[in-house]
Amino acid sequence: MMNRKMLLVAASIILNLVLIIHFLHNNSSTWTLSWTNRAAEEAEDAASVSCSGHGRAYVDGLGVLDGNKAPCECNNCYTGKDCSFLLPDCHAAANSGDPLFLEPFWMRNAEGSAVVESGWHRMSYHFYEDGSYVSAELERIIRKLHNVVGNAVTDNRFVIFGTGATQLIAASVHALSQTNSSSPTRLVSAIPYYNVYKEQTVFFNYANLKFGGDASAWKMSKHNDNMTQVIEIVTSPNNPDGKLKRAVLDGPNVKTIHDYAYYWPHFSPITHPADEDLSLFSLTKTTGHAGSRFGWALVKDEAVYERMKRYLTLSSMGVSRDTQLRALQLLKVVVGDGGEGIFHFGYETMKKRLEVLNKTLSMSTRFSLETIKPQYCNYFKKLRDFTPSYAWVKCERLEDTNCFEIFRAAKIIGREGKVFGSEERFVRLSLIRTQDDFDQLIDLLKKLVSREVVRADSI
Amino acid sequence: MMNRKMLLVAASIILNLVLIIHFLHNNSSTWTLSWTNRAAEEAEDAASVSCSGHGRAYVDGLGVLDGNKAPCECNNCYTGKDCSFLLPDCHAAANSGDPLFLEPFWMRNAEGSAVVESGWHRMSYHFYEDGSYVSAELERIIRKLHNVVGNAVTDNRFVIFGTGATQLIAASVHALSQTNSSSPTRLVSAIPYYNVYKEQTVFFNYANLKFGGDASAWKMSKHNDNMTQVIEIVTSPNNPDGKLKRAVLDGPNVKTIHDYAYYWPHFSPITHPADEDLSLFSLTKTTGHAGSRFGWALVKDEAVYERMKRYLTLSSMGVSRDTQLRALQLLKVVVGDGGEGIFHFGYETMKKRLEVLNKTLSMSTRFSLETIKPQYCNYFKKLRDFTPSYAWVKCERLEDTNCFEIFRAAKIIGREGKVFGSEERFVRLSLIRTQDDFDQLIDLLKKLVSREVVRADSI
Repeated sequence: MMNRKMLLVAASIILNLVLIIHFLHNNSSTWTLSWTNRAAEEAEDAASVSCSGHGRAYVDGLGVLDGNKAPCECNNCYTGKDCSFLLPDCHAAANSGDPLFLEPFWMRNAEGSAVVESGWHRMSYHFYEDGSYVSAELERIIRKLHNVVGNAVTDNRFVIFGTGATQLIAASVHALSQTNSSSPTRLVSAIPYYNVYKEQTVFFNYANLKFGGDASAWKMSKHNDNMTQVIEIVTSPNNPDGKLKRAVLDGPNVKTIHDYAYYWPHFSPITHPADEDLSLFSLTKTTGHAGSRFGWALVKDEAVYERMKRYLTLSSMGVSRDTQLRALQLLKVVVGDGGEGIFHFGYETMKKRLEVLNKTLSMSTRFSLETIKPQYCNYFKKLRDFTPSYAWVKCERLEDTNCFEIFRAAKIIGREGKVFGSEERFVRLSLIRTQDDFDQLIDLLKKLVSREVVRADSI
Repeated sequence: MMNRKMLLVAASIILNLVLIIHFLHNNSSTWTLSWTNRAAEEAEDAASVSCSGHGRAYVDGLGVLDGNKAPCECNNCYTGKDCSFLLPDCHAAANSGDPLFLEPFWMRNAEGSAVVESGWHRMSYHFYEDGSYVSAELERIIRKLHNVVGNAVTDNRFVIFGTGATQLIAASVHALSQTNSSSPTRLVSAIPYYNVYKEQTVFFNYANLKFGGDASAWKMSKHNDNMTQVIEIVTSPNNPDGKLKRAVLDGPNVKTIHDYAYYWPHFSPITHPADEDLSLFSLTKTTGHAGSRFGWALVKDEAVYERMKRYLTLSSMGVSRDTQLRALQLLKVVVGDGGEGIFHFGYETMKKRLEVLNKTLSMSTRFSLETIKPQYCNYFKKLRDFTPSYAWVKCERLEDTNCFEIFRAAKIIGREGKVFGSEERFVRLSLIRTQDDFDQLIDLLKKLVSREVVRADSI
């Protein structure tokens, strides 16, 4: 009797101790969160929705205003409430350079990359008292990132932020076109060039700027008179063909913009730190956050920097502070391990995709892909292949004059060669989208190539 | 002896029960948050920094990359680690329309307005499969907001988002200037007009657009020939003078843009729902989030809408999805109580400030402020005063030709009348900044006015 009572007391005291330790531990190791709780629960709730690995749910998904649970938003070709149903006869989306290949990296780094923003976070137009539109910490981490990767010299450079590199292309072209010359400045770029350069110039229709087409053709032409003001945009690695490029033109009348959006270890050997007058970079291709619309420029000349700042002020009063806060957190994760995590993940993913693509196309004589010779990469400290964002595919048969249409007939939607200033015999296929997009692309590509083999056999 | 043992057992069991209930309660009423914890703790940590009511600490403050605690960022004229020190001889910042007067509202609504964003949130360029740059839920809540406030008709209107209304001014002017006319379109606006209209036009220097100055002068001039294409921007309530305005020009050659950035109950009676071809709004003046760079346009004509979309695509590929997520959450708070909370807070704050300002200036004959007759407000369902964002002050003395300089000598930094196309005899003073800025403005204004009275006495 006495023993059983003793046992009861002992058991009760042990339970007490366990509970007290649990209680104390909980209170010491975690905050008691207050005003962030509702938002945190909503975010974790949406993140926990299972979309079968073929989609994801977002807190601002369709119907959330009606109190509905965040719905699955499925990858291309998948449908159903939980994205588990593969649509038959679906096309392959290979047009835009939507960098979703990095999405799994961020899902695995959920804790480090999450951002909580208060309702009163940076309501002002300005950071700090100097009236700046730029987060000084974000500028610091961008300089650090270039240091770590070794892809650009940032010493003696001004850093300027844009709503995507898109806005910075416009700002830098505008800044460099403001000359005293009576005839308009010409914007040129070596074919094949990124289509947006021409589209912006034609659409915005500035009084003192005209699109001049191919930089190499310009060099040979009678217009190349050392008098006409010229801006050359050099994209390296190039979009669409992935090659490292150098400027074609030089001279006192030539100004150069270097678009380094793709100069990251995911896509290219880092052969040297870029050290140019005006270089552009994009968060889209660095971390994969196309939706955030964030890019930056490194600018040597102060007058050019000031004109670009003026452009940024008058076109949007700088870049969203919400995005600057998020970019800071994302780049903290990137830089935290010296880029190990993201660049290995990105490179390995692209390498696997390129292997599959090359193998698929190796059976074809109808479609060809130029190979780029491996180079030594100062970042990975080894000789490595190029793993470009896009396949720049040539249709080799004489009768296949429009390569885009050949692929479209096979339900593969790429981007037409002609928008890059190139022949229609080329098509650009995006390789950096979701794994589902890539798998669908390869699936349809195999079918297309297999028909070719059959034809060859039947001859 | 027996009783004391019983007591011990009873006490132990009661403690057990208390702890178990506490344990169960904690686990049932709150999620066990996981990946959001770090970010939530950081945000709450920064929010808990005391800055003496004269500043606030942000998670992305200077030095956080070095592991430092988020530092206080002090209001103008305050300094010290906790912003408790008032600088002697400080100037009053009354230039920019930084809408910090709404900051206390968001601090009080911390829970509802917080946003948690995952590292993989909307990485794509596009919302949904249609390739849209626009959150459909955000568009819905914007339509609802106009319905609730009654300041604009949204039926049969397209909604388009911009990186601030700033970008939408540029986009809409560009869209409307694309005509087949051989001579450039003229952009006009009635004096006093918001300085950015002219600054954009002059700086961007589009081939087929020229700034045409004052709309009223244009109407009287020989250029008003029903042939030259004209765009008139009507700002209502007007920046800088706060009055409701109507278009000056009409005719088949005239297109009109209505800038309704200030048409909210904070600042103006809501006399009718705006029902125009092209209307612009800004989150900056609606919720006070200037730093987010978000605005929207309501557009009647589909062709104009398409041209504006093209402009948005080529200038920035739409608006940051981070900002769209945050704007959705902020507007949920605004619309949640039919605007009660924010518009009452905003109006009451402005009303108090206007009373203090009017009282201060009532002792002056040197400086005058035009009064605007109260009007019936459909939102507040009563006759109410205008509570404009800016004081548009006139210097009445003949010798005070440059009003900005007169105020600057008194350490009050406003904005020069001439940038609004007006006489230098006017200066614009911002009334929507922090309470500290407003207090400092009134303090220095009292001193300026009191010197005037002394002078009058000494004659």
